[in-house]
Amino acid sequence: MHSKDSAILLISCSDKKGIVYNVANFIYSHNGNIVRSDQHTDEESGTFFMRIEWDLDGFAIQKNTIAQAFEPIAFKYSMNWQLHFSTKRQRTAIFVSKMEHCLYDILLKAKEGEVATDIACIISNHESLKTIAQYFGIPFFVFTKTKENKLQQEKKELEILNDFDIDCIVLARYMQILSKDFVSHYPNRIINIHHSFLPAFKGAKPYHQAYQHGVKIIGATSHYVTDLLDQGPIIEQDVIRVSHKDSIDDIIRKGKDIEKLVLSRALKKHLEHKVLVYANKTIVFD
Amino acid sequence: MHSKDSAILLISCSDKKGIVYNVANFIYSHNGNIVRSDQHTDEESGTFFMRIEWDLDGFAIQKNTIAQAFEPIAFKYSMNWQLHFSTKRQRTAIFVSKMEHCLYDILLKAKEGEVATDIACIISNHESLKTIAQYFGIPFFVFTKTKENKLQQEKKELEILNDFDIDCIVLARYMQILSKDFVSHYPNRIINIHHSFLPAFKGAKPYHQAYQHGVKIIGATSHYVTDLLDQGPIIEQDVIRVSHKDSIDDIIRKGKDIEKLVLSRALKKHLEHKVLVYANKTIVFD
Amino acid sequence: MHSKDSAILLISCSDKKGIVYNVANFIYSHNGNIVRSDQHTDEESGTFFMRIEWDLDGFAIQKNTIAQAFEPIAFKYSMNWQLHFSTKRQRTAIFVSKMEHCLYDILLKAKEGEVATDIACIISNHESLKTIAQYFGIPFFVFTKTKENKLQQEKKELEILNDFDIDCIVLARYMQILSKDFVSHYPNRIINIHHSFLPAFKGAKPYHQAYQHGVKIIGATSHYVTDLLDQGPIIEQDVIRVSHKDSIDDIIRKGKDIEKLVLSRALKKHLEHKVLVYANKTIVFD
Amino acid sequence: MHSKDSAILLISCSDKKGIVYNVANFIYSHNGNIVRSDQHTDEESGTFFMRIEWDLDGFAIQKNTIAQAFEPIAFKYSMNWQLHFSTKRQRTAIFVSKMEHCLYDILLKAKEGEVATDIACIISNHESLKTIAQYFGIPFFVFTKTKENKLQQEKKELEILNDFDIDCIVLARYMQILSKDFVSHYPNRIINIHHSFLPAFKGAKPYHQAYQHGVKIIGATSHYVTDLLDQGPIIEQDVIRVSHKDSIDDIIRKGKDIEKLVLSRALKKHLEHKVLVYANKTIVFD
Repeated sequence: MHSKDSAILLISCSDKKGIVYNVANFIYSHNGNIVRSDQHTDEESGTFFMRIEWDLDGFAIQKNTIAQAFEPIAFKYSMNWQLHFSTKRQRTAIFVSKMEHCLYDILLKAKEGEVATDIACIISNHESLKTIAQYFGIPFFVFTKTKENKLQQEKKELEILNDFDIDCIVLARYMQILSKDFVSHYPNRIINIHHSFLPAFKGAKPYHQAYQHGVKIIGATSHYVTDLLDQGPIIEQDVIRVSHKDSIDDIIRKGKDIEKLVLSRALKKHLEHKVLVYANKTIVFD
Repeated sequence: MHSKDSAILLISCSDKKGIVYNVANFIYSHNGNIVRSDQHTDEESGTFFMRIEWDLDGFAIQKNTIAQAFEPIAFKYSMNWQLHFSTKRQRTAIFVSKMEHCLYDILLKAKEGEVATDIACIISNHESLKTIAQYFGIPFFVFTKTKENKLQQEKKELEILNDFDIDCIVLARYMQILSKDFVSHYPNRIINIHHSFLPAFKGAKPYHQAYQHGVKIIGATSHYVTDLLDQGPIIEQDVIRVSHKDSIDDIIRKGKDIEKLVLSRALKKHLEHKVLVYANKTIVFD
Repeated sequence: MHSKDSAILLISCSDKKGIVYNVANFIYSHNGNIVRSDQHTDEESGTFFMRIEWDLDGFAIQKNTIAQAFEPIAFKYSMNWQLHFSTKRQRTAIFVSKMEHCLYDILLKAKEGEVATDIACIISNHESLKTIAQYFGIPFFVFTKTKENKLQQEKKELEILNDFDIDCIVLARYMQILSKDFVSHYPNRIINIHHSFLPAFKGAKPYHQAYQHGVKIIGATSHYVTDLLDQGPIIEQDVIRVSHKDSIDDIIRKGKDIEKLVLSRALKKHLEHKVLVYANKTIVFD
Repeated sequence: MHSKDSAILLISCSDKKGIVYNVANFIYSHNGNIVRSDQHTDEESGTFFMRIEWDLDGFAIQKNTIAQAFEPIAFKYSMNWQLHFSTKRQRTAIFVSKMEHCLYDILLKAKEGEVATDIACIISNHESLKTIAQYFGIPFFVFTKTKENKLQQEKKELEILNDFDIDCIVLARYMQILSKDFVSHYPNRIINIHHSFLPAFKGAKPYHQAYQHGVKIIGATSHYVTDLLDQGPIIEQDVIRVSHKDSIDDIIRKGKDIEKLVLSRALKKHLEHKVLVYANKTIVFD
């Protein structure tokens, strides 16, 4: 789809007259063709959000000077903004522990081009899933963590992430809590899957909590990681029906299918620059 | 469907060999034909649950002596058990405040025979919905409640419920908390609809809470009322997708449709004697 | 929500550079503030679709001359376009036969402002639902139809629709097929609910067809009426799970809840001018 | 769950008094403990269906003579019946073409014990997926088929299926139509996944058909293969929402996730002997 070279602007600012006009004018006056545009206004706070994408074929400004050229408009409206290019292949690191279902799902979807990213490396606190990494030909690193060595190990992980030029981190059922410092290196770029319908059942063993509560539906939630456990901005959620006939094992099994769906959808939206974060919530353009 | 006269046994007891045999033998040896049988064993606690329904046409025991005849089997297995008859029309009271959507839904479904019950009376803490009651020809009583007069008013409500020979109470968005004493008169016979996917967003203004949390799915939960607010055994839940585009008004509107579905489904299951309560959870037979 | 006076432009045309710019410029240069903008490009045919809404407060052009002022832009890009005003209350006629569930649902949602329209009249081929119309205070007309008098009766119906200044017709389980001529008076303005997941089970008794096929999910479809039976552009669909335990009566009952949801959602989208028709399909903006 | 040795009876016959009693008596009188029992009566045809499972620990009849001992009861009620043992590991063959998503999903679920079967071999009409088979250590056979050699190739396939002692065949997006003769060797034991919400969009390119029709929801259907293409008894279906924004590629991508879910659920039910076929429909016990 995005095989063509296009530019993507993500914008948020106070809502004022003329924003759309000025952005459209910037693109049109330099001979760009808008291929996609989404916008949203948060009425409570009067904040305007936009994602606009245009074809760079024939665009009058060189890619490396577009940002500079757009700066005056951004300045005029005090925009928070990001500029991305569809042809810039993002690089993803996957963090795992012992469960393989989400890892496989992302690896296969990346291989088939359904999520457009290079899985550059896999980091784990266990050796368990090394064979999978080898099969897919992806570097695999193990950092076992204790309370004592956690920050030290994270430092090594950060070095690897840096070496591999990582844009985005996926916690594919990674059973370790990242430190506040670690998280601060990748704000809104670490995507977690939590196996409950948040905010219900935060923390450990959510399926067991769901079972104890006798809920009739279970869910999974993908969110950006912040320094508050399981409380970062929610990107995607989905659910599946359960009943009294489902044992905890059944719930876990059913949940795994939902976790995969939710995590890969969230990752896809993130990689397509369709997610904006505001007030600990997300705007996710279709 | 259940136009025929049938008997329904609801049983729970410790799981032992021979329960099914003894129950089936009781029915068969008196010339009954089983039309429906559902059972479940809770493996953790080793508890057996059963709902068995048989045609009374040609059954050798008179209806009013079936219970007595079954008693020895129940005694042998220390059963908790209930005996119901499909032709016994249950009588329901609906409690409402100002919102009409759930009230209308139940009244229409009762009228069309989709939930098999007589709506015997409507009780409210406001005059607002009186016209609806009149249109459907159902007695309507108003008891305004303050902290001071609550128990006194509930006493009057209990008298009415008694006068109308009520089997089952539906709180159709009734915005008052019932006292522990009131609830104790109708254990597992008061059905509430809470407008969230419990246990998330207990208490007041759950849609506002959902909006603040930026969840991507909202839900509704129907449960039996206990003396712990919004924590009784869950009978039914359902959900609907929302997005950043949905204002609180949109969420409330979408939620109302789900509330109706969930409440009427829970009521229907209850009236068909398909709900068993155990360990603050429900077994809901299909 | 749309209590403010806003203008809504619906546009479709061949995709070319500058469309968004020109429309945004038209609004901005006359001091309008865009409150909502959605667009879509059909890549197969290269067709561009847009719905743009702007606040009329302070807009430099009088409402009754906006169309004229916009005409040159529309001409330049050979646009199909419509201009609507949010404060223009649309008038809806509901056609029914004997089933009341969809009728009640729309009447209640209109009353509560959830679908923003005046239900101006109800037309039926039976007397059955007259009481409901009276209760809601809405004129009710009966035109029984035979093969012989159909066109004649439709002529009378068209007169009434004209007298009541009807913008939109809802077939709320109306069990008559409208003639090609009748349909031609309200192109893309007659909304039907069909009780199947189209294109499966067109025509009569779709729930019986679903039952015979042993499907595990049933659905409902709301679509614009064209002269091909049950084949007009689909606006909305939804589904519900069924099983071998569901009799035809159960399927009908479950289906009715879905029909209501689907029809009211489709009507709401239509009334908000969020539906565009193209190539017998719809673009439905969120 | 079913680690214990249990016996499973699947029964269908004309509904008569005493069936449940006689079966329960058979089990109880030989000291068996029922762990699960499900039954259903098709009211139209008066047909009774049952799945009953009991613990063999302490059961008074040897496994290899249970069938013989049950025969008189089966004879008395003219039952169609099957006897299975939970510890008998079933052997599955997977047929694939070039698409890998369903293959991976089943292999991983079998490996994790989520579907209880040995994947004994993989058969394909292409070399494409050989590497996957090797990675999982499963024999892989290629039989390319032309109109001319089809029956001949199928004969070789049948030999392999025989050699590998195959109980169940899964067509995991196998793009060949099996001959009537082939199908007759495995009645109700060949499970296909069709990438549409059947009966809509039978045959080739269902996602393209869905796209052309502008449906708002797409689905997948798993069914037993019969000699009528895509018309065998439906075991499981599920759906996912699409919109005008979804290209055919998007629809295919979304559909793949649903195909996996539906196929693996159907296979799981089949392997647990929870599916009964009657009148080209299925009874699927929970």
